[in-house]
Amino acid sequence: MTKEDIIIKMVLDAWHTHVKRTNDLFNGLSDEQMMQEVAPGRNRGIYLLGHITAIHDKMLPLLGLGEPLYPELYGPFVENADKTISDLPPVAQLMEQWTTVNAKLADCFTGFKTEEWFEKHNAVKPEDFDKEPHRNKLNIVLNRTNHLADHLGQLKFLKKK
Amino acid sequence: MTKEDIIIKMVLDAWHTHVKRTNDLFNGLSDEQMMQEVAPGRNRGIYLLGHITAIHDKMLPLLGLGEPLYPELYGPFVENADKTISDLPPVAQLMEQWTTVNAKLADCFTGFKTEEWFEKHNAVKPEDFDKEPHRNKLNIVLNRTNHLADHLGQLKFLKKK
Repeated sequence: MTKEDIIIKMVLDAWHTHVKRTNDLFNGLSDEQMMQEVAPGRNRGIYLLGHITAIHDKMLPLLGLGEPLYPELYGPFVENADKTISDLPPVAQLMEQWTTVNAKLADCFTGFKTEEWFEKHNAVKPEDFDKEPHRNKLNIVLNRTNHLADHLGQLKFLKKK
Repeated sequence: MTKEDIIIKMVLDAWHTHVKRTNDLFNGLSDEQMMQEVAPGRNRGIYLLGHITAIHDKMLPLLGLGEPLYPELYGPFVENADKTISDLPPVAQLMEQWTTVNAKLADCFTGFKTEEWFEKHNAVKPEDFDKEPHRNKLNIVLNRTNHLADHLGQLKFLKKK
């Protein structure tokens, strides 16, 4: 195993671990709990679920894996704050979309060759990438794992003590 | 820049970004705010500060960088839950220890050679490392960044909206 492959495994392991932890948490929460705020005056569970789904969905075009599956989530769950949009999709539908987009990502990750992880992601200009080769596809996964960890820490508060 | 060096930079960038975000947050919080629970019935700011400090301090021996600077923090902030120990150190002291341990880590990281990041960390047995070469020093930094991101998401709730 080359050092590149070792590191790719490290980054993907961290990604899968956090997706699994989030799924385990969601599996123990009712739809009613998902409608609660994670802390007083803060985002609700349903908003954070839609938010992480929309952000993961956006990874598809960033990684050159096609169009987002659910572009309609970006407005209500990324561009707008919670409790400003009144007609959100039901929790069950968001949960299905969350599962589908992560399954698609996992499937695509398996097919990536070592070299492909070091290609530029689609939000960097080629001329910038020459100077900043760390802005590659693997970095998207690394940073989105931290993004998920941040919100997972918050979502845990929905669980009864 | 080799692929190994690009990836090491990615992991260290994510580490430094999250330490900085945490510092920026702490700079905007009063000692009184740090004594509050981040959400009703959950950990207080002071506990999470002591917790991330103790966990970062423990990285020193894991990375072969010497003994922890503040081993006395491990008991009250890792082995015991919040609000079970009545005499915690003052916030100002913990804040200083948080800064000191991160400065020491940052300093040591700068001195690491590429190869050193791929050496086994000190909680893995040599025979296990042969089969699991991803359990290296860089992986400690990657995973502790996720750990910090998780708690940073919670600490943000101490800020007034």
